[in-house]
Formats: sequence, C-alpha cells, structure tokens
Amino acid sequence: LRKLVRFGVSINSELLGKFDELIESKGYAKRSEAIRDLIRDYLVEHEWEKDAETMGAVTVVYDHHVRELTESLTALQHEFHSSIISSMHVHVDEHNCLEVVVIRGKGSKVKEIADRLISTKGVKHGKLTMTTTGKGLV
Amino acid sequence: LRKLVRFGVSINSELLGKFDELIESKGYAKRSEAIRDLIRDYLVEHEWEKDAETMGAVTVVYDHHVRELTESLTALQHEFHSSIISSMHVHVDEHNCLEVVVIRGKGSKVKEIADRLISTKGVKHGKLTMTTTGKGLV
Amino acid sequence: LRKLVRFGVSINSELLGKFDELIESKGYAKRSEAIRDLIRDYLVEHEWEKDAETMGAVTVVYDHHVRELTESLTALQHEFHSSIISSMHVHVDEHNCLEVVVIRGKGSKVKEIADRLISTKGVKHGKLTMTTTGKGLV
Amino acid sequence: LRKLVRFGVSINSELLGKFDELIESKGYAKRSEAIRDLIRDYLVEHEWEKDAETMGAVTVVYDHHVRELTESLTALQHEFHSSIISSMHVHVDEHNCLEVVVIRGKGSKVKEIADRLISTKGVKHGKLTMTTTGKGLV
Repeated sequence: LRKLVRFGVSINSELLGKFDELIESKGYAKRSEAIRDLIRDYLVEHEWEKDAETMGAVTVVYDHHVRELTESLTALQHEFHSSIISSMHVHVDEHNCLEVVVIRGKGSKVKEIADRLISTKGVKHGKLTMTTTGKGLV
Repeated sequence: LRKLVRFGVSINSELLGKFDELIESKGYAKRSEAIRDLIRDYLVEHEWEKDAETMGAVTVVYDHHVRELTESLTALQHEFHSSIISSMHVHVDEHNCLEVVVIRGKGSKVKEIADRLISTKGVKHGKLTMTTTGKGLV
Repeated sequence: LRKLVRFGVSINSELLGKFDELIESKGYAKRSEAIRDLIRDYLVEHEWEKDAETMGAVTVVYDHHVRELTESLTALQHEFHSSIISSMHVHVDEHNCLEVVVIRGKGSKVKEIADRLISTKGVKHGKLTMTTTGKGLV
Repeated sequence: LRKLVRFGVSINSELLGKFDELIESKGYAKRSEAIRDLIRDYLVEHEWEKDAETMGAVTVVYDHHVRELTESLTALQHEFHSSIISSMHVHVDEHNCLEVVVIRGKGSKVKEIADRLISTKGVKHGKLTMTTTGKGLV
C-alpha cells in the first residue's frame, strides 16, 4: 500500500516566486511535482554513487559504412546479453546511425559495458545516461 | 572525399603511460581512436553550446499504472512529432517502464521538448543525453 | 523586506523516508534546508543558461617551475582585472600549485576568461565552477 | 627525469580542421597542449572514480548576516583542519560572501567534507570542483 503524506517547507517568498516562474517555463503543472522530481533526481544520483542495482541508457552514434562496426557492436551486445535489456536503432542520415542500448545491473557493471560500447573503433560519439529502475522511487 | 591525415603530439612519457593504461582498461584497441573520441566529445559539447542542429535522447522512467500518464506522454510526442525521430519502450518490472525518445533539432528545441517530457506528472526520473547527428564528425 | 512563507508538498511516504535518510547522511539538520538547496541549485543552473550576471571560480593546477607560466597567468588576470575579484594560491607540493580565481560577470564572459586560463600552456588541469552572486537567492 | 616523447594520431582532415578552429577560439596556442589537456582531464576524472588521493575546491555562497553561520562554517573547517589546506573569502556585496575551501584527501573524504559545508543551514549555494594534486600529471 502506498501512503501519501504531506510536509511543509518554509521558504522566502522571493525565492519561491523565482522557483514557480522557472518550473512553469519548464512545463510543470504543479509545484509538488517539481519538488518530487528534484528529490528523485537527488536519490538517483546517490543510487549510482553507492553502486546499487540501476539502469543506464548508452547512446552511440556511428557510420554504418565503417567495416565490421555493426558486427562489433552486435557481438558486444551479445557478450553482455544478460545485462542488456533492449536496444533501438535510428537512421539519422545516409551515413549516420544512432543506437540506444538499455542496460540493467550494478552501476559499475553498467559503466563497464558502456565503456566497451563507446570505445569501439568507429563509434563517433557515445554517452552513458545514468537513470534508474524506478523501484522504490514512488 | 575523406582524407586521412596524421599529426604528432609531444607529451611526457609518464603521462602517456598513464593514459595508455586507462584507455586499455576502457577497452580501446588503439590510442588514436581514444584521442579522436576525446576530440569528438569536445566538439559535441561545443555543438550544444552554440545551439547548432543536433540530436538528444531523453530517458524517462515511469509507472504505467499512473492514470493518463501513458496518454500524456504519447500526446506530447505527437505534438512534437516533426522533431521526434523514434522512441523505445522497455518494461522494467510490473510497474516501471523506461522510455527513450530520440529528438532531432536545434539544441534549445531539443531541451524544450525534454523539459516537457521530464516535467510530466508521474514521470519518476528523466534525463536528457546531449549527443549528435554525427554529421561532420568523421 | 523578506517574507517567510510556507508551502506544502504531497509525497509518497516511502520516497520521503529515503530522502530523509539521504539528507541526514549528507549532514542536513532540517528537511526544509535540503529542499531550499535543491531549489537554489536548480535556479543557479538556469542563471547560467540564460547568461545572467553571475560568479564563477576557476581552479587551475600547474607546476610553478614551468618557465613563464606564473607570469602568463598573472598577466591574464591583469588583462581581465575588472572581472576578476580575487585569487588564492595554494602550494600543493614542491612542484605543484593550485590557484583559485574568482570571476564576476555575465556567464559567457566568465566562461571566456576561464577558457583562457585553462588553455594556458603548462596548466595541468583546469575547471570552472559555476556558482552565483547569491543576489535574489534568499 | 622527465622524458618528452612524441606520438602520432591519424585523423580525418575535416575533423582536425574543426578541432583546430575550436581550440583556437578557446585560446590554445598549440594543438599538443589542447590534446594533453583532454588527456589530463580524462585522467583526473578517473582519479576521482577510483577514490585516489586528490584535491577539491568547495565554493559556498552565503549571507554573512545569517546568525551563527560564519561560526558554523569556521567550526566545520577546524573539525577537518588536517584535510583543509586553505580557504579564501570574497565579499560579493553588502550581504553575500563567497568562500572557496581547498581540501586534500581521498576522493570520498573530500566529498564528505564538501557535503557537510554545503548542507550547513544558510548556505545558499555550494559546489564541489573535483581537481587534482597534479602529482604524476606532468
């Protein structure tokens, strides 16, 4: 059972005014939602610091004409198949592809797989996004 | 026509030794590849600073049981359909979903769409990865 | 006149429990203080995005034995004397110095000065911390 | 004895052209210097990941009129005096101060002290810059 509680924050009115203005421009409909997002983001950061079970998304951009590159990336994903949940391929233009690989595991393991994907010869740009399984982040 | 050139870097041997050790642990097969990756990453950062045409991947984690959330996220993606290239949905567990949305456009536009997705009520965690179309990043 | 107000946040009890645990480990005495910090950090990030008047601290690490390096860094600081508020020099060991330079100005100007300091030949490591004048951040 | 070596990087001419353009705009006089900076920055990041001995600079912005705040910050710095190397105080305006505290130690220890300073009631904004002792970063 999920229980909703309410807590109060004391704050200077000027600071609150600026915050309200900013979150409106970001598209938030309610202040509580923005506060919860700040809280959850702070918790996810900590999840990664303490090497807990988590999820990451690696984006790699590459030219599919590069010899054997597609094969290498596929082989790598098979090597780590137990940690890799899914991947998506986007055709950017005649040459360039963007691939997003979603990985689940301990933070250090996710980083290791990301390092391997990003360091593959021919990958032009790679980045790991540290996200979360969402578990416990109600 | 793409022309390969070669340039020399003078460096202290101790520093080079440490670099070689680190890139080996990251999985790089060749030093030139690691150097090119550092160069490209530096260029992509700048691409975003000067608000050029680029690509971003937004990951959002949410509970699909939250009423109307899936509908809101889908509606948003339709609103920005001309900028959104593709999206992928991952079932993390009984409750949690991870969705990756790939967006193309000027950096500021990509950020705006990311803000809208991340600020949607019920989204537990959202992050924008600033990547690239790969164009000109040979 | 600064007016203190109070607003309520509705949140799941489990999420709040995790947040309380984390902020206690970080040393926060009160929850409101942690929330205000998240809010202010979010506002400062935005201050830099919209290129408002702000403050930055540049740290550079270098070997003071490198010929003419100290002179170059000093000359640079004089060139931008109207923006540079103060600097501090720390003797790390026989060779290495760490210098912190505090700069005030529009975000883009602060970045430009930071780039110049960091790119000076002989500087081993340089980083810009984007902070704030604190004005309006009650 | 420090030995200078030279290594070659093979790269596409278009990519190199863009890199040269960017580093010139950043103020680099020589390409080798920019490459060495990218390498050193990459090494420093790793230094922090593996929790080696390193240095950090914490900047905190606060209103010195807040009761007991200056005392709290001073007391904290005394508590960790063996790790804190130096600190600098800047008067931003009638209300606001910016203080930079330079800390030396294992990454995790430096982070702990930074957390404590940043979480002090009344501190408006705090940030840790992860830098280095420069040792071995020739």
